Amino acid sequence: MSDDPAPCNDTPGARALLLETASAIMREGDIVDISLSELSLRSGLNSALVKYYFGNKAGLMKALLDRDMATITGGVGALLHKEMDPEAKLRRHLSAMIDTFFAYPYLNRLLMRLVRDSDEAEARRIAETHLVPLHKAYDQLIREGVETGVFRRIDPQLFYFFATGAADRFFSARLVLRHCFDQDTLTEELRDRYRDHVIDLTMAAILARGSAPA
Amino acid sequence: MSDDPAPCNDTPGARALLLETASAIMREGDIVDISLSELSLRSGLNSALVKYYFGNKAGLMKALLDRDMATITGGVGALLHKEMDPEAKLRRHLSAMIDTFFAYPYLNRLLMRLVRDSDEAEARRIAETHLVPLHKAYDQLIREGVETGVFRRIDPQLFYFFATGAADRFFSARLVLRHCFDQDTLTEELRDRYRDHVIDLTMAAILARGSAPA
Repeated sequence: MSDDPAPCNDTPGARALLLETASAIMREGDIVDISLSELSLRSGLNSALVKYYFGNKAGLMKALLDRDMATITGGVGALLHKEMDPEAKLRRHLSAMIDTFFAYPYLNRLLMRLVRDSDEAEARRIAETHLVPLHKAYDQLIREGVETGVFRRIDPQLFYFFATGAADRFFSARLVLRHCFDQDTLTEELRDRYRDHVIDLTMAAILARGSAPA
Repeated sequence: MSDDPAPCNDTPGARALLLETASAIMREGDIVDISLSELSLRSGLNSALVKYYFGNKAGLMKALLDRDMATITGGVGALLHKEMDPEAKLRRHLSAMIDTFFAYPYLNRLLMRLVRDSDEAEARRIAETHLVPLHKAYDQLIREGVETGVFRRIDPQLFYFFATGAADRFFSARLVLRHCFDQDTLTEELRDRYRDHVIDLTMAAILARGSAPA
């Protein structure tokens, strides 16, 4: 988090480049871990910079979680304050969530691993930064829709599990694709088809029967 | 897989007890791994029996996967041959899947780990035993529903990802519950509420608009 210049090898983008490279390694390997030597090789940066910027590998992982989750929690927070009907908000949120899990397929697993492996204080920080705001946002978003009669009366917290589960499919998808469909790539075409599918099904699931069909 | 008597410590239930104990350890710890010493301690069986029955720990894990997945794949296979309308079949399948993931919250992760870590031949065996039949079953089940006008025209393979994702929520649920709701137990009451939620939303999502509401 320091802005001080590193003793060597420092460029304005070195911290960001380390995070981006770690992200790419985990995405390509379908894994939730990196080796510092691979990180150094791929980024072209001395692995001492990991210590400088993040303290250690665990610190790098936390920073990556914060970076990636911000696209979801920040997005939902901004949505809630928009002048937009609940249906449009939910569509927008689902779409953004699919895009985020496609870009960072390790994300949900990284979140759970860090909550599990961190000490009590850090686990609480992660939960309060990323989990609690999401739960509150779901509460508000679903309640708005129920109160205006657009959504059926459903449990927002269970719906959080349901929607996240549907979105978090890209991590293992490649393995299934390879063995069932002789295809080993997460294409953008697949992402777009899956995004349409999830939004279509979820809106049909949640819209009150009197509303216009999805 | 041998039926020969073990040199020592063998009882008719020793193999099953090892599997059941390994399952309980992974369920309670929210993990996809066991230590053989803990397995021996908890089961009261000599860990040489793991070698006798399964060859090694990886063999034990494969046998556990086969045991647990059989409740899903066997169930779906039997359902397809039943005289029952597609809507009732899908409800029954979703319900069974929620029950299975509640009982074995590590299951989806174990499946993906073994497909990933096994050699090509074993990965193919796992895929052909567990993944391919499920995909074919979804194809048939959804097509039946679409052809009779009960289901909307959706992609069965994308729906497989959607439904499995929604069902596979108990693995990380405890962490979320602990940090957002001060609750650390997967209760049967929660399972029942989540089962109702998933079936309700999924049927609303998939039923053609002319059908009776869920």
